[in-house]
Amino acid sequence: MEESTSRTTKKKLVAVVGGGLVGSLNACFFAKRGFDVEVFEIREDIRKAKVVRGRSINLALSHRGRQALKHVGIEEKIVSQGIPMQARMIHSLNGKQYPIPYGRKGQVSLSVNNIATFSYYAICRLTEYSTMRLSYCCVFRPDGSKVQIKADLIVGCDGAFSATRKQFLRRSRFNYSQTYIPHGYMELTMPPVNGEFAMKPNYLHIWPRNTFMMIALPNLDRTFTCTLFMPFEDFEKITTGDEVIKFFQKYFPDTIPLIGVDALKRDYFRLPAQAMVSVKCSPYHIDDKCVLMGDAAHAVVPFYGQGMNAGFEDCIVFDEMMEQFNEDFSAVLPEYSRVRVPDDHAIADLAMYNYIEMRAHVNSKWFLFRKHVDNLLHFLMPKTIIPLYTMVTFTRTRYHEAVQRWHWQNKVRSFLKIYASL
Amino acid sequence: MEESTSRTTKKKLVAVVGGGLVGSLNACFFAKRGFDVEVFEIREDIRKAKVVRGRSINLALSHRGRQALKHVGIEEKIVSQGIPMQARMIHSLNGKQYPIPYGRKGQVSLSVNNIATFSYYAICRLTEYSTMRLSYCCVFRPDGSKVQIKADLIVGCDGAFSATRKQFLRRSRFNYSQTYIPHGYMELTMPPVNGEFAMKPNYLHIWPRNTFMMIALPNLDRTFTCTLFMPFEDFEKITTGDEVIKFFQKYFPDTIPLIGVDALKRDYFRLPAQAMVSVKCSPYHIDDKCVLMGDAAHAVVPFYGQGMNAGFEDCIVFDEMMEQFNEDFSAVLPEYSRVRVPDDHAIADLAMYNYIEMRAHVNSKWFLFRKHVDNLLHFLMPKTIIPLYTMVTFTRTRYHEAVQRWHWQNKVRSFLKIYASL
Repeated sequence: MEESTSRTTKKKLVAVVGGGLVGSLNACFFAKRGFDVEVFEIREDIRKAKVVRGRSINLALSHRGRQALKHVGIEEKIVSQGIPMQARMIHSLNGKQYPIPYGRKGQVSLSVNNIATFSYYAICRLTEYSTMRLSYCCVFRPDGSKVQIKADLIVGCDGAFSATRKQFLRRSRFNYSQTYIPHGYMELTMPPVNGEFAMKPNYLHIWPRNTFMMIALPNLDRTFTCTLFMPFEDFEKITTGDEVIKFFQKYFPDTIPLIGVDALKRDYFRLPAQAMVSVKCSPYHIDDKCVLMGDAAHAVVPFYGQGMNAGFEDCIVFDEMMEQFNEDFSAVLPEYSRVRVPDDHAIADLAMYNYIEMRAHVNSKWFLFRKHVDNLLHFLMPKTIIPLYTMVTFTRTRYHEAVQRWHWQNKVRSFLKIYASL
Repeated sequence: MEESTSRTTKKKLVAVVGGGLVGSLNACFFAKRGFDVEVFEIREDIRKAKVVRGRSINLALSHRGRQALKHVGIEEKIVSQGIPMQARMIHSLNGKQYPIPYGRKGQVSLSVNNIATFSYYAICRLTEYSTMRLSYCCVFRPDGSKVQIKADLIVGCDGAFSATRKQFLRRSRFNYSQTYIPHGYMELTMPPVNGEFAMKPNYLHIWPRNTFMMIALPNLDRTFTCTLFMPFEDFEKITTGDEVIKFFQKYFPDTIPLIGVDALKRDYFRLPAQAMVSVKCSPYHIDDKCVLMGDAAHAVVPFYGQGMNAGFEDCIVFDEMMEQFNEDFSAVLPEYSRVRVPDDHAIADLAMYNYIEMRAHVNSKWFLFRKHVDNLLHFLMPKTIIPLYTMVTFTRTRYHEAVQRWHWQNKVRSFLKIYASL
């Protein structure tokens, strides 16, 4: 009761550090609950900025992310700007293409690129740099001067290299890991052909080549963003335009006419390959003062298409607990860490697992056979056997429960295999 | 050739950050090779400081550590100040004691407490705080002023919370993890009885109690340092002197008269339980400029008695590579990371494994049976079957090879077990 009284007399202030995807959405969630919200972002307002090509992996929006957007009333707006992908399209070395469906019909992911179109409930103050102390935000203005803002709650949504998280690292008993994978990524653009998409648009195109691979996602402007994933040492072996073409002729011959010889020779050297990091930590909170969400809490490698979705789901989970504990931060924050850490660790592990699977197994007959068996079992026993990918992408089954269930289903499948062979 | 010429004209400067065990020993190694060495240490000179009780786990010096000390000619000096421990002495709940030998006769670890008696070859400059940039050490004087010292190599030996390592964390593609275990530790002193050790001195005493345990190591002054390892939440449950006594009566009744009721009641509350962290990272170097060793590179939990030994062995391994590559830092540093990372990760994992084994299995008949089988097999096939503990503690077998060999031996043992049961 005291809580609500104080809220009617003076609104509590939530400082959201980071105005990216998760920070912006979180601002909407807190504003909807009636908090004063301030968003602190070091970069220029992305709505005014030019698109920076080559530095943003395309994003796949699926069920969890959509549920979060729906909650603050902007699902339809975002969905209308995405392109549905109904299946993966595998490109073999010999130029053949064959689709692998994600799940049942109607279960689609959306390719979204620039979705920073949230109606900000909050005033977004652009600042040069922001860091946090326990009970206030310390903001550096562009002129170098410092402002301290007393916030009731600090929400760190400042990404994989979070400045907020650095404060956690100074405290004892904070568990933390950052793991870089040996692969880097590079983005290349495939322009439209005669004003139309150069390939079938409603697919996530994949060129699996064992130790490396390329994927392509469609954009609204009818381009594709191609992303090449390859060990850094292989990127570094290619030093001239001719070597780029030779490499593409050997491994991705069908893409050369579509991307264009000149563009390939030029764009390959525009930026060095970018690193990918997997970050895990726990707990996500300090006292009743500060909480981490999104990549700041759990950067994942991009191979399950769940980074943004997991970050958006963080917002719902937190909001559900705010409801449950009557907005009492001292109860919500520990519960959020307790419940959310195992789920975020599970999706980080799954993304790492898929890093191997996408490169190697998508090609193999065994993998395809297993997918078919899974889909068949799901058709026969829709409530008992649900493919892992379906649980992760098209439901809100808790990530760690999806993994547990998957392990159990693998045992069932092994049993059926033995039974069938008798 | 150029190298040696430049060394004769002007000696290269090595800045060792941290004047603890590994930093001091490393200074000796570099000085022996003819480098100018400066050691930077934030704390007071430990040789002049009073012993800080309750903050230092006793150390077990074994083969790897001794080899390193031997290399710089101070093995005998240190060994003369240690107390040999020929076996573990297990204390049951019912007050019975039984020894479990470490290995063959003559294979002993030494209990050492304050071995900061290295003859410093280097000048040890005490400074308030030191951090490092890539090619120089930046030192903060007690008055707050800053000195920059241009060093040819910076060696970060500044412990589990290394300031040097923070510079590594700022760079891309540095893998890092810190994991706190749910247990804390607390040190208690067991004084001599009538001028003699209160228990048999030449043993590592262990009171295994499943979720928690106590150990005691002998000191030269005929005291024992008892270390209680217990989950933080259990430490926090005990809030009064009477509760301490009740707890000891239930779990460590034989130690109450030896530590003393009053001392127990007082010392339990002198300091809060201390946290234990396991740190892994890679690589250990930046270019040809900086390298991490000891706890700065690989803090381990203290349950294999290898923390100091692994750190000392780092110094030998580095020195061996200095010999191999003619002191060319650009060759030595990457090779050091390549070779040493898997070994240090292996000992970190083993220490974590022993964290579970020491508490739970030391008690069990199965564990004792397995030890006997191992020792019997080692007796029958001394070159084929070597117990893991022996390889780790009494040889310089590379840690990761010891682990591989152990896995293989476990398979052999399983096979023998099946064979024996036929």
